[in-house]
Amino acid sequence: MTVMEKKADIGLVGLAVMGQNLVLNMNDKGFTVAVYNRTTSKVDEFINGPAKDTNIIGCHDLKSFVETLKAPRRVMLMVKAGPVVDQFIEQLVPYLDKGDIIIDGGNSLFNDSDRRTHELHKKGILFIGSGVSGGEEGARFGPSLMPGGNNAAWPAIKPIFQSIAAQVDGEPCCDWVGNDGAGHYVKMVHNGIEYGDMQLICEAYQMMREGLGMSGDEIQQVFAEWNTGVLDSYLIEITRDILTVKEPDGSLLIDHILDTAGQKGTGKWTGMNALDLGIPLTLIGEAVFARCLSAQKEERVAASEKLPALAAKFEGDTQEMVDAIRDALYASKIISYAQGYMLMREAAATYGWELNYGGIALMWRGGCIIRSRFLSNIRDAFDRDPSLQNLLMDDFFINAITEALPGWRKAVGTAISLGVPVPSFSSALSFYDGYRSARLPANLLQAQRDYFGAHTYERLDKPRGEFFHTNWTGRGGDVSASTYDV
Amino acid sequence: MTVMEKKADIGLVGLAVMGQNLVLNMNDKGFTVAVYNRTTSKVDEFINGPAKDTNIIGCHDLKSFVETLKAPRRVMLMVKAGPVVDQFIEQLVPYLDKGDIIIDGGNSLFNDSDRRTHELHKKGILFIGSGVSGGEEGARFGPSLMPGGNNAAWPAIKPIFQSIAAQVDGEPCCDWVGNDGAGHYVKMVHNGIEYGDMQLICEAYQMMREGLGMSGDEIQQVFAEWNTGVLDSYLIEITRDILTVKEPDGSLLIDHILDTAGQKGTGKWTGMNALDLGIPLTLIGEAVFARCLSAQKEERVAASEKLPALAAKFEGDTQEMVDAIRDALYASKIISYAQGYMLMREAAATYGWELNYGGIALMWRGGCIIRSRFLSNIRDAFDRDPSLQNLLMDDFFINAITEALPGWRKAVGTAISLGVPVPSFSSALSFYDGYRSARLPANLLQAQRDYFGAHTYERLDKPRGEFFHTNWTGRGGDVSASTYDV
Repeated sequence: MTVMEKKADIGLVGLAVMGQNLVLNMNDKGFTVAVYNRTTSKVDEFINGPAKDTNIIGCHDLKSFVETLKAPRRVMLMVKAGPVVDQFIEQLVPYLDKGDIIIDGGNSLFNDSDRRTHELHKKGILFIGSGVSGGEEGARFGPSLMPGGNNAAWPAIKPIFQSIAAQVDGEPCCDWVGNDGAGHYVKMVHNGIEYGDMQLICEAYQMMREGLGMSGDEIQQVFAEWNTGVLDSYLIEITRDILTVKEPDGSLLIDHILDTAGQKGTGKWTGMNALDLGIPLTLIGEAVFARCLSAQKEERVAASEKLPALAAKFEGDTQEMVDAIRDALYASKIISYAQGYMLMREAAATYGWELNYGGIALMWRGGCIIRSRFLSNIRDAFDRDPSLQNLLMDDFFINAITEALPGWRKAVGTAISLGVPVPSFSSALSFYDGYRSARLPANLLQAQRDYFGAHTYERLDKPRGEFFHTNWTGRGGDVSASTYDV
Repeated sequence: MTVMEKKADIGLVGLAVMGQNLVLNMNDKGFTVAVYNRTTSKVDEFINGPAKDTNIIGCHDLKSFVETLKAPRRVMLMVKAGPVVDQFIEQLVPYLDKGDIIIDGGNSLFNDSDRRTHELHKKGILFIGSGVSGGEEGARFGPSLMPGGNNAAWPAIKPIFQSIAAQVDGEPCCDWVGNDGAGHYVKMVHNGIEYGDMQLICEAYQMMREGLGMSGDEIQQVFAEWNTGVLDSYLIEITRDILTVKEPDGSLLIDHILDTAGQKGTGKWTGMNALDLGIPLTLIGEAVFARCLSAQKEERVAASEKLPALAAKFEGDTQEMVDAIRDALYASKIISYAQGYMLMREAAATYGWELNYGGIALMWRGGCIIRSRFLSNIRDAFDRDPSLQNLLMDDFFINAITEALPGWRKAVGTAISLGVPVPSFSSALSFYDGYRSARLPANLLQAQRDYFGAHTYERLDKPRGEFFHTNWTGRGGDVSASTYDV
């Protein structure tokens, strides 16, 4: 069918795998979609391939693409985050009218979505920056969608977004997140949590493989079993499945995959944002750094030849230790989500958003990479107490962590004695022990800072905000460091 | 003496404690210094107070301040990092001639020093961004100075900087670092390492205080002894001294200091830069996050009442465990510096600097907060092999870590079983175990990413740069994610 015969409900730019699958998903739900791609041969390949016998309309230039759309026009970009998004916005705007909507579904930095919302608002165009999670499969059959930006656009995209999104217990995994960059911010935290979840599974795997010497098949059975309990989640499920995929010679495919992971993008942004806002997001930080270390393969191989290996061998009960590893994974996961929610709470206060924390758990409960039974528990916690300050103060999670604690300590202690690196398990445990410490050794740190930099300190027996300086050496002056910060 | 009677060698703006002490230090070394402060009453207080009977010249406005200086004029700013530096530069430039020099001695972000070097270069003014470390005492009696920026200015400031800097074995702890922001970058890493060193000492203290139940006096003796061995350093020394300072009632002052530490500034920048460059700077990251957690005092107190405390008590040999804690501190410190040097190496490659790694160790060996015997070992390592890829591959450090390893594992294992948070000790150990692992579990991670996002993977049995995609489910397509990154 030709371009002018039909008006499309929405147009999508960018026909990489995520874009293609979102379009097919919208088509399945009865929406007419126009598509455009910079390399126009991809349009034809798509129309004659996966989109054959659908109502999808292929366009070879932006002008006819825009003309195909019903008013208010809804254009969704599924292109590489960064300058490419701005280039497409610049090319689209001349063809658009006031009240038209541009949706960026890429993994954009939330600050960029802030900026684009404001810039396009001045031109009368409504901008939406939406997190889209679920990968290839999610995009095709129901992703988690996290839209934010100009809330005047929400009614016009809500029917499409909520019908293509994953559904859990009849509720769509898509709701309005907040103004400006809030949608992409929440997606960023989602991805940071995804980094953490994946690292936790890797540590459990490494512990079973290297620490306990279990076979791939044995480990596969463990993940299969874990997926029937509190750890039931998409990432555990696919790990179970990955461990069944074999090479022609019968060996496991995974044993032939190079152990270096990329880390650029949303994971590192989450860590950088946490540092910037002063929130101890230790687990995700360690997970990002673990990817960095994995990337230094050659240096690790060289180091493995020069640095002494451990003679220690595991001699305990394997099943007991497997259970302890499960407890470590579960408790660490609770810490990771608690930290992620701490970060979102601080971001909301800093950037002026009203975030619905239970609603975010609901959006993540289906469709996306971190979907899990666990997220229902988080939603329940916020249902019980919408003003809950920290997940670690909710009774469900207190009980869960209390039960897992002995196994968690045992697993980390064993990993340490066996020389298996478990940076996220142990970082989470340190955080937990720090969080439940009324007193930490920062008093010594403050004394040091006052000693060498006259930075002053507060006292336990005086009101907050009263600052003291001690002339520790008896030599230095009494000038405090008011304008110069060491 | 009046302004016009004498020409000053250098002028300094900003009379907080660091500025005052640097001026007195320069005066001691025979340089004539003019001073200015925005709140001019501070000028008079300084001239009539600490600077009485010196050659220091007080000025009440920037114009007469600049007129007091010999050509080429050297103006050093010791003001709050950030916009204030730009404001003073803007005010100064109209009074300056081509070839005059502005030195920023604040804790500026290295990107700002990059920018200022280039902006002032266009106006014919030579800019130096210099790290200044050593706090109150260092500034007064010999700091560590890390100048970078426009190298044409170096000859004109070298005599002053190298004579006021700390001297170790006849060598000044000051040398040219590199172009543009390199000086402030190296100072930033120094501060990050300082965060790490302080956190390590805090963890050792906490372990002795809470884990082993030792008294303040006993702990004081341990630090005094440690300061005579491989841990000999300024921060151990002041910890020893801090633990002697008592309240009128005989109790230790430190026990009355509030345990919340600030974390804004160079520590967090170091962590953010490491994430950005993809270098696993885990120990400093944990140290910054530990400060963030310490700041959440009220939440910790509330959590301590709700989350279960441990029944476990230490029952081993105290002296043996103190030795293990020393080993943990020493080995973790090696990891921290190795990570810091990894970061500087990557920064040099990324930003186009030629850094002299042995020279940096020399600059830090005296004068600054992290000064220590240990830095001589680092310098020696780079003397042995100037192209050393990683400190952990140097024989001295391999031996040191091998010797410390059993105690390190024991201390961390004990902390975990006692519930004492040791985030940096354990993070360092995880890093070490990861670094010496030829294989990490990132193969599973890559399989997961290929499963849900078609991100492709490399294989152990194929050359790097060849990418494979598996249709893991048998359902998804074979489209790989070329332009869209989950």
